[in-house]
Amino acid sequence: MRVLVLGGDGFCGWPTTLYLSDRGHDITVVDNLSRRKIDVDLEVGSLTPIRSIGERIRAWHEVSGKEIGFVNLDLATEYDRLAAVLAGIRPDAIVHFAEQRAAPYSMRTGKTKRYTVDNNVRATHNLLTALVETGTGAALVHLGTMGVYGYGWSGSAPIPEGYLTVKVPTPDGELEREILHPANPGSVYHMTKTLDQLMFAFYAKNDGLRITDLHQGIVWGTQTPQTSQDERLINRFDYDGDYGTVLNRFLMQAAVGHPLTVHGTGGQTRAFIHIRDTVRCIEIALANPPQDSSRVRVLNQMTETHRLLDLAKMVADAMGAEIAYLPNPRREAEENELIVRNDQFLALGLHPTTLSEGLLEEGREVAARYAGRADVTKIVARSVWRAGMETSGDLVAELPAQP
Amino acid sequence: MRVLVLGGDGFCGWPTTLYLSDRGHDITVVDNLSRRKIDVDLEVGSLTPIRSIGERIRAWHEVSGKEIGFVNLDLATEYDRLAAVLAGIRPDAIVHFAEQRAAPYSMRTGKTKRYTVDNNVRATHNLLTALVETGTGAALVHLGTMGVYGYGWSGSAPIPEGYLTVKVPTPDGELEREILHPANPGSVYHMTKTLDQLMFAFYAKNDGLRITDLHQGIVWGTQTPQTSQDERLINRFDYDGDYGTVLNRFLMQAAVGHPLTVHGTGGQTRAFIHIRDTVRCIEIALANPPQDSSRVRVLNQMTETHRLLDLAKMVADAMGAEIAYLPNPRREAEENELIVRNDQFLALGLHPTTLSEGLLEEGREVAARYAGRADVTKIVARSVWRAGMETSGDLVAELPAQP
Repeated sequence: MRVLVLGGDGFCGWPTTLYLSDRGHDITVVDNLSRRKIDVDLEVGSLTPIRSIGERIRAWHEVSGKEIGFVNLDLATEYDRLAAVLAGIRPDAIVHFAEQRAAPYSMRTGKTKRYTVDNNVRATHNLLTALVETGTGAALVHLGTMGVYGYGWSGSAPIPEGYLTVKVPTPDGELEREILHPANPGSVYHMTKTLDQLMFAFYAKNDGLRITDLHQGIVWGTQTPQTSQDERLINRFDYDGDYGTVLNRFLMQAAVGHPLTVHGTGGQTRAFIHIRDTVRCIEIALANPPQDSSRVRVLNQMTETHRLLDLAKMVADAMGAEIAYLPNPRREAEENELIVRNDQFLALGLHPTTLSEGLLEEGREVAARYAGRADVTKIVARSVWRAGMETSGDLVAELPAQP
Repeated sequence: MRVLVLGGDGFCGWPTTLYLSDRGHDITVVDNLSRRKIDVDLEVGSLTPIRSIGERIRAWHEVSGKEIGFVNLDLATEYDRLAAVLAGIRPDAIVHFAEQRAAPYSMRTGKTKRYTVDNNVRATHNLLTALVETGTGAALVHLGTMGVYGYGWSGSAPIPEGYLTVKVPTPDGELEREILHPANPGSVYHMTKTLDQLMFAFYAKNDGLRITDLHQGIVWGTQTPQTSQDERLINRFDYDGDYGTVLNRFLMQAAVGHPLTVHGTGGQTRAFIHIRDTVRCIEIALANPPQDSSRVRVLNQMTETHRLLDLAKMVADAMGAEIAYLPNPRREAEENELIVRNDQFLALGLHPTTLSEGLLEEGREVAARYAGRADVTKIVARSVWRAGMETSGDLVAELPAQP
């Protein structure tokens, strides 16, 4: 298949690009390199020394013999170029990662709130319009988030895959209806993914676009069998308070000798998936577009759920770290239960890579190898959900010398 | 109250501005005059000879002695100026009409789809962000649409005011939950109002903004007691296939001797409200902001429902016109039932202005007075929901000479 990977230079996009290329697909990355530019503004960088997209692609060609195309293009603002790329490449499928994806960054300032909405909504809507205008019949696979459902809404009921069956009282008795699961986003970032859902629903209904929306859990891990073939192919590892994902942050903190940062009680339960499963799920989704194009196919892309404090304790016990309880900069419930269905992915052949000591240790090792690149002032999360919320100062003045 | 009227130069915005000014409020209109500029692109104009916003405001001062402020500002692109206006004026309340509001225009081309989303989403989100950033405690009243609910979804059940009580099955029995009514928009325009809803919900929950969302029916009528005080205050009257609303179009067509254009079977049932009630509803909403600021107050701003064919027959019978059945450029159900609750507005003191011969005749008279300004080539609706859908040619080559 000819596949466009929009946002193919990012944390999930790059490993997906290599995985799909390795599996024989003809890949073109479309990316405006915004993730790298945001790091410039935040004065932080990937813990791992990621190479430029050009060097990455050249290295992959050396290692695998395969070509990957690259177009530097801003989906939100360069509509005409996007339409030209679709008309020129005529992709069979498109994977859409090209959105600002950090909740804390999306809540950081008025400017980042606006950037997140302006960028994400326009990127998605430009893409949908361009598919219609150019008559591109490509199947679209979008990376959404478990966060569209919010937490604790349905009590003991498992979160279904996108659609919820409810009963509506009417004068003629109860009506059973399958509805898009009510949206309950916890940040401006998550909100943009709920907006995406409604745009997908409309363009599926009106134009018959074939769309799959993957509601992904928190991704952890760094390397895949492809990214570890050459150091120039290494994936990014975010450890900072805005972009770092929670389990990877715990592993990094344990590796560099920093207390594990639990914001709030740690009673928050979240869904997780390893980066190796992310790339497999994308391939499964590409191979199984919706039969009925009038309705978006929704899959829950996660393999397990954990309480954050349980994860912290597990890492602390295994690796000898301390836990620091910090003020929570988010407005969220202190605790929640979370039960999630992922029956469709399991039925389509996903064999979950769940938490194991070996994988945790691999993550710690990656972090330890590059510990000297860490900036200790970037570790505590300080983007607050409302002005005036309390945050913590740095927990340590400098990191211990690495062995 | 100091009130900002965003979009205060438009079809609903201008009469609201005058009504609120007449009632003693201190009004500033914020408008980028986009509605007039779209008419330039569409090569059409209001049937009534509306004056420039400057002349309108001067005329109102002559007639009433009252001052109205005006700021020419694009909410979607001039965030810093918006924030400065909020900080400078410190409004008690804001009425937000400032969105592209025609479904056919929103479906006309890829460019107008994108304009509608880019403009409406950014205008609303910039406003929300600016309220938070400037600490403006103003109550916000937004003009939404009945179209967020879609048609025919809930069978014989009346459409409630914004929130629907449903039963969710769980392993521990059924859970009763009040949810935002599932969105089922029929056009890109309507879709943007469903996106607005989710943004309002988030900013109410996270930031405690006090927001009222008015789900308005199709507005008909032209003049209010304020706009009819001087010809320079006259409200706009859209008769073209993109911006004209259905009942006003029938009245105009009857007045100028054009067949009444029924697109499709006419079995579509829609909700209606007269422009005189629109302005009253806004005042009622301003006087009754939500008590619980964590949840958006939703009111259904409509007074009656009618099948389009029934309206056409009523106008045809009363005024001696013919009915022409044309291909429907929209993708929608041929027929639907529609029962809508508006209990809250009734309880808050609205006395509905329903369809009457007198008001219909008033509309016909306004149209007849300015019939010479009509362009017969703009009457048939030709913006199609999908490429290739059939449309009709012009029904008449020129309009009969007016008496």
